[in-house]
Amino acid sequence: MKIPHKAKKVFKGVIFDVYQWEQEMFDGSKATFEMLKRPNTVQVIATQEDKILLSHESQPTKKDFIGLFGGRQEPDENELDGVKREFLEETGMESDNWDLINIYEPIYKIEWNVYIFAARDCKKIQEPKLESGEEIEIMKVDFDEFIDLVIGEKFWGREFAEDVLRMKLEPKKLREFKKKIFQ
Amino acid sequence: MKIPHKAKKVFKGVIFDVYQWEQEMFDGSKATFEMLKRPNTVQVIATQEDKILLSHESQPTKKDFIGLFGGRQEPDENELDGVKREFLEETGMESDNWDLINIYEPIYKIEWNVYIFAARDCKKIQEPKLESGEEIEIMKVDFDEFIDLVIGEKFWGREFAEDVLRMKLEPKKLREFKKKIFQ
Repeated sequence: MKIPHKAKKVFKGVIFDVYQWEQEMFDGSKATFEMLKRPNTVQVIATQEDKILLSHESQPTKKDFIGLFGGRQEPDENELDGVKREFLEETGMESDNWDLINIYEPIYKIEWNVYIFAARDCKKIQEPKLESGEEIEIMKVDFDEFIDLVIGEKFWGREFAEDVLRMKLEPKKLREFKKKIFQ
Repeated sequence: MKIPHKAKKVFKGVIFDVYQWEQEMFDGSKATFEMLKRPNTVQVIATQEDKILLSHESQPTKKDFIGLFGGRQEPDENELDGVKREFLEETGMESDNWDLINIYEPIYKIEWNVYIFAARDCKKIQEPKLESGEEIEIMKVDFDEFIDLVIGEKFWGREFAEDVLRMKLEPKKLREFKKKIFQ
């Protein structure tokens, strides 16, 4: 959900800002409502021929995990610029064939979207430039392995995993998805 | 994840409190890390004979939705007391046969658990006492309808829905789950 225009920012954090407003209830009474805002997440299903690239990542405060490449959108860029920047930083790669695949809103009380893009024919043009908190290994898997990893224990990204679980229950959708990402 | 002991509460909100701490990175540099804390969610799969009770709810700021009965755990109560209180308020019912079914952690950066209980042979003992922001209709469905509603568009509760999607892919788990909730 979008934070209402009348809401006031009552706290500015490192990641999360807090907003509050007066909300009229069904019975006419009023209550203070609260929502958060955080930077959007931008991620990419990156392909090379018939393979997909995944990130196997370690961070200081959590167990190692598998995920799509990507990160946080910066205030001064749009989603596509953000995902291109993160992908280049993490892998040293670029692509000239991008499409938006899906947008998720993970939590109702947080204004926060997750954008998933596809990027085809990814090519390495420089060395990765990792942040001090990141250690990333690039995995290269075929489509069936990709699907199994996404619905597996170590995958990071519940909304996308839920989508893939739904596709597994409707094989037609899974085939359409495969077509879409490899195009 | 649990917020580290050394973290300081930097903001106290209506629902969300914000905590920050200094985190040492892999390269020895330091960064300010931030996490949130909010009250746990307590919910119940409530049964009467071979039927399950669901809530069809309207609230002032979102579309109508279907969910389990339940709400927020209060600071002065444990999870089971919390879910019994919420269930009684919303339905006027009680049960003397409760079990914890699962615990979810929806978001990594928020210290927040979702507890799902089962309650069997629920009986009405008083009228519901709804909060000013709630309008609730009680639905009574069989197990197959329940599963379809949980993975449907209107269901509120992504973590439980994801679990049910996984069960649909492994029918043995779905049968075990059915046994568990009706016991």
